[in-house]
Amino acid sequence: MEVENRYVAVRHHVEGSPSVDDFEVKAETVRWTPESGEVLVRNMYVSIDPYQLNRMKRQSASHHSVDVIVPGERIASYGVGEVVASACEEYKEGDVVAGMLAWEEHSVFRPETSMLMSKVDASSGFPLSYQLGALGTSGMTAYGGFYEVCKPKVGETVFVSAASGSVGSLVGQFAKLAGCRVVGCAGTQAKVDLLKDKLGFDDAFNYREEPDLKAALKRHFPDGIDIYFENVGGEMLEAALANMNTYGRVAVCGVIAEYTDPGRRAVPDLLEVIYKRITLRGFFAWDFITKFHEFTAIIGGWIEEGKVHVIEDVSDGLESVPSAFVALYRGQNVGKKLVKLA
Amino acid sequence: MEVENRYVAVRHHVEGSPSVDDFEVKAETVRWTPESGEVLVRNMYVSIDPYQLNRMKRQSASHHSVDVIVPGERIASYGVGEVVASACEEYKEGDVVAGMLAWEEHSVFRPETSMLMSKVDASSGFPLSYQLGALGTSGMTAYGGFYEVCKPKVGETVFVSAASGSVGSLVGQFAKLAGCRVVGCAGTQAKVDLLKDKLGFDDAFNYREEPDLKAALKRHFPDGIDIYFENVGGEMLEAALANMNTYGRVAVCGVIAEYTDPGRRAVPDLLEVIYKRITLRGFFAWDFITKFHEFTAIIGGWIEEGKVHVIEDVSDGLESVPSAFVALYRGQNVGKKLVKLA
Repeated sequence: MEVENRYVAVRHHVEGSPSVDDFEVKAETVRWTPESGEVLVRNMYVSIDPYQLNRMKRQSASHHSVDVIVPGERIASYGVGEVVASACEEYKEGDVVAGMLAWEEHSVFRPETSMLMSKVDASSGFPLSYQLGALGTSGMTAYGGFYEVCKPKVGETVFVSAASGSVGSLVGQFAKLAGCRVVGCAGTQAKVDLLKDKLGFDDAFNYREEPDLKAALKRHFPDGIDIYFENVGGEMLEAALANMNTYGRVAVCGVIAEYTDPGRRAVPDLLEVIYKRITLRGFFAWDFITKFHEFTAIIGGWIEEGKVHVIEDVSDGLESVPSAFVALYRGQNVGKKLVKLA
Repeated sequence: MEVENRYVAVRHHVEGSPSVDDFEVKAETVRWTPESGEVLVRNMYVSIDPYQLNRMKRQSASHHSVDVIVPGERIASYGVGEVVASACEEYKEGDVVAGMLAWEEHSVFRPETSMLMSKVDASSGFPLSYQLGALGTSGMTAYGGFYEVCKPKVGETVFVSAASGSVGSLVGQFAKLAGCRVVGCAGTQAKVDLLKDKLGFDDAFNYREEPDLKAALKRHFPDGIDIYFENVGGEMLEAALANMNTYGRVAVCGVIAEYTDPGRRAVPDLLEVIYKRITLRGFFAWDFITKFHEFTAIIGGWIEEGKVHVIEDVSDGLESVPSAFVALYRGQNVGKKLVKLA
């Protein structure tokens, strides 16, 4: 079988803020045979994640752990699709799968070498798009990062930056369920309202309207911060450290403000780290891969019970992948950013 | 009973590099009565520690956890002394005690409110000065920081900065005993020789002769660093992070390069922290206070067996406290810096 496949690629390595001109839509013919051992999938949703920008750089610390994206080539991404043809027992035509696919219309995978690939239980009743966010890598990141890295205790205070994003919006809700007091920050009043009115954050603020982030956090955390879930970097980390309590924990999940500007860095006061005995720990989703199904089952239960709300931001069609991706770095998404294909 | 007591004080808060002119020797009359419940001690050795500089600043993150030093007043410090008069059962005249005393000739303490105060076992055979370093807070810091914070495994690689200092010289030796490969850095060739020839470090280098610290660490750790015991801060931390392995651990014990210059800060690449899932953890000696006797008993055993060497740098007389202290920030000490009184 042959299918015409269109995919999104970068034209060159991307440094600094991405623009849609850095991308192109390319076409190729994908061949699948019954002898291949492969599964051919028509992709339905693909995930748009900030970390992908690091993969696009010529040099980045991310290259230690995640494959660099090669200009002109397909870009691996979490996604959901329907099996069109299968050359192995576990998958059948018509099955819906979630796992590492790519920013493309059709993907081919081998079960034995595919990360996180699994069949989606059609009877679950969740929208398929949830498999990319709350029930996918965003959920795994948020759950693992909050429960395993931050180790929350009832009554602790939690600060979440980029709190209306895919991970932050979940972390804040998990923090409430864990009996914590949680404050989030975001970049627009509409996002701040969402955090407070829909997602149950105890409070939220617009960081763009705060000339002094240390003072803002002091106001929102008069008794200090026990847990900082870091998605932003730069001066936000410095301000959080200055307001943290003894034995505070910083889960370093992402530093989106630093992704687009290599000259922009957090300049932490290490005396805060020493004398408050703060722990900063970097992590990413794959650290919790063995607990993926455990985590997503718990999150799924919470969604069913109405305890966790899923916020999505959906663009349409493969052509919208570049603009959807670029929007992430301009703070234009609310919740999980994804692109619906086909 | 009345004794004439001389003590060292700061004339004013100290910012930046200290100089001997920041200090003065003052005199007072100390009164002790049998009804006071207090113990009067003639101090024999007092400890000279880098962290004291933070206490001398007008503003510092250290003030969260450690009392600020007030100009003109006595400066608490770990020390060893002999009991001259006692108004309580546990201590008798002639007993030797170790614990929080001060930079002064005589100290008075109340057993129920004195930190870490204990009688020194005269039969142990160790020089009394060891109570300040390897068998005192330096030992507690090194042991707790290395074993409890770094959690070393056999075969791991360990980098120690300020490796010829009181804590670093112990950490390096502990690392060898733990089956690790250890490289230290220091600021003179003599110190480098000491690390390699006497203390058993696998390798050592003079950081002042390395124009590119990242390249130096790459050369010394071709397979990367698993554990960084941080005593220095600034660009040394950046270079270490760039050379760390996945799941690396940084024990943030001190940042002496930043103590004297508030504008000098580490500017870490947080992408290294995220993608290598590095943990940085601040700590200090008091975190291990409940294990003090356990730790020092182990270290004492190693010293007796010749497995750990104690390096000391002793100045003489109360008047030498300011110059001894100032020398710490100029890299002029080798091993534990202390002042012998009386």
